[in-house]
Amino acid sequence: MKYNEALKEIKTYEAGKPIELVVREFGIDSKDVVKLASNENPKGCSKKVAEAIATNAHKAYLYPDDSMFELKDALSKKFSVTSENIIIGAGSDQVLEFISRALLSENDSVLMSQVTFAMYEIYAKQMGAKIVRTPSYEHKVDEFIAAYNEHKPKIIYLCTPNNPTGDATRRADILEIIRAIDDDTLVVVDGAYMEYAAAKDEDYRLEPKDIMEFSNVIYLGTFSKAYGLGGMRVGYGIANEELIHELYKMRPPFNITTLSLLAAIEACKDEEFVNESIALHTQEIGRYETFAKEHGFFYIESYTNFITYLFDDNINSTIIADELLKQGVIIRNLASYKMNAVRITIGTKEQNDRLFEVLRSVLS
Amino acid sequence: MKYNEALKEIKTYEAGKPIELVVREFGIDSKDVVKLASNENPKGCSKKVAEAIATNAHKAYLYPDDSMFELKDALSKKFSVTSENIIIGAGSDQVLEFISRALLSENDSVLMSQVTFAMYEIYAKQMGAKIVRTPSYEHKVDEFIAAYNEHKPKIIYLCTPNNPTGDATRRADILEIIRAIDDDTLVVVDGAYMEYAAAKDEDYRLEPKDIMEFSNVIYLGTFSKAYGLGGMRVGYGIANEELIHELYKMRPPFNITTLSLLAAIEACKDEEFVNESIALHTQEIGRYETFAKEHGFFYIESYTNFITYLFDDNINSTIIADELLKQGVIIRNLASYKMNAVRITIGTKEQNDRLFEVLRSVLS
Repeated sequence: MKYNEALKEIKTYEAGKPIELVVREFGIDSKDVVKLASNENPKGCSKKVAEAIATNAHKAYLYPDDSMFELKDALSKKFSVTSENIIIGAGSDQVLEFISRALLSENDSVLMSQVTFAMYEIYAKQMGAKIVRTPSYEHKVDEFIAAYNEHKPKIIYLCTPNNPTGDATRRADILEIIRAIDDDTLVVVDGAYMEYAAAKDEDYRLEPKDIMEFSNVIYLGTFSKAYGLGGMRVGYGIANEELIHELYKMRPPFNITTLSLLAAIEACKDEEFVNESIALHTQEIGRYETFAKEHGFFYIESYTNFITYLFDDNINSTIIADELLKQGVIIRNLASYKMNAVRITIGTKEQNDRLFEVLRSVLS
Repeated sequence: MKYNEALKEIKTYEAGKPIELVVREFGIDSKDVVKLASNENPKGCSKKVAEAIATNAHKAYLYPDDSMFELKDALSKKFSVTSENIIIGAGSDQVLEFISRALLSENDSVLMSQVTFAMYEIYAKQMGAKIVRTPSYEHKVDEFIAAYNEHKPKIIYLCTPNNPTGDATRRADILEIIRAIDDDTLVVVDGAYMEYAAAKDEDYRLEPKDIMEFSNVIYLGTFSKAYGLGGMRVGYGIANEELIHELYKMRPPFNITTLSLLAAIEACKDEEFVNESIALHTQEIGRYETFAKEHGFFYIESYTNFITYLFDDNINSTIIADELLKQGVIIRNLASYKMNAVRITIGTKEQNDRLFEVLRSVLS
């Protein structure tokens, strides 16, 4: 059977290792595994959301309201847009997929920073598009505008805060890039971790309403991080009506589960949980900075719920991650991003204590 | 912005109307709405599954085990295949999407029966492929082989039992079609409702192991119908390793939710629930046949959990469906399939009583 040409170029996404795998491979009790690999919310999810899921568990047999009326209504109020400006995805990930499939074909290119979310490349390659990267992992205005002028990409991805590096780009810089781009190129502003950046520094806060005047820009957000619903797979894209209408043609019916829809609606009512999550994060992240300084390696200043440690040649990130794994601590090795670095989710106080203890023993 | 050409041809799927819509539009209390439109299991889901979801609701923040080790293990034992023969989708729907995206491009055609599951066409058109249909809604061996020889389609869809008509195709006939097809055409055997057909008549039972000897055939199944998990979005494709490997390139990470994965694993342990669901169905469907005969219209003999009523010119399916909707009974009008017909899910005794009462008053 002849598969589409594009398939030859596709590598699959390397997911953070699940707790189940550590239990299976190393025989460690699941209670003793600390997972700081996938930027899940260490506070779990809102108690109110968990209760709503439990109370409605028997509704698992019912398809969801495919119009997603109530969730879109909640998001439209939260972001001062209309329901027609919103598309819901199984994670903002799926909105990335819709974008790629609606716009790209084999002669197109897409532009992104040197190190950024892996799915941009994977979805673009599924459509046979070429990948162009700026020299830096940071989103530098000059680099993006120069690469845009040279390659005229069909899509530009601006990930702020950036994953897996943790740095962020000022709102003013994002808007400067957007203004330099003609409207036949789509600009994707991926704000999956925006709640953390916005809480840390107002200059980095970018909201959907900031991009609504541009016909060629879409803002992506998610319930997976600050809202603590990574396992429920709910994200969203916000843009002008025409763009949303076209992306809808790529959306399969019932693309989020009945309980995911209900969980996201409940989550919108509990902003207090988000504030508490950010407060915990703010309290703990300083310990990671101190730990790096004490052990003489670099870190990237983080605007997210994780921190990226950069190692010099004395330390090998793959060895570090493997050694931690054997002791039941899962972090994310960034070797597949061609970085001698690891990405660690900021956990609870107890999880972080354990991480420091094990990492200290591995380093010594 | 220039979207891909294929988008011009895409119509979106018309989902069965949700209860929430009837509540919003007609002001009917949700408890008084009877939904027999989306072939959801009238028994709901397994109590054991609902309990497992409720107990694990707090895990909503954790990404699922993306290897889906335990679910694939359960399915491989159930169907006497290996885990490498299985791909999991957000509904078998998503596996259809992977297939379409892995194989189709603009010069291809796909072959299906005259009236069959709408998503085959939608996913094929997303790739710009042409749709070829046999003259009959039933899957007739001669018609499929003739159309195959004429059009040499890239994909052939065999939906047995067929949705939205409810008829089924004998295993021997499916295998006769498959044997007539060269291995550069993929044959998709969609068994979403297979549990009902297999229980009704052994001649219609087709299992994944029946197609494993063919390199160009994939079997699709789902937890949405007999297992009562429509809202959780879990389905699967079973085929040879090479085909599964290629489809995996189109699978996004974490494509089902953490609670969906857990629900499907639990559902595999409770086959008793499936048997009870089929027993209820078998007990109730005869009443629908009797009702049709009493009112002088035709029905298609059903091998599924729904029945399709065919009307002559005296009755208009759109008027019938609209009148029922106003009284809080949701059924599926098949006008969009160019049939003067309605599809009704066989409900509980009480739901069916209500349907008959309201339909009787609308018909008189």
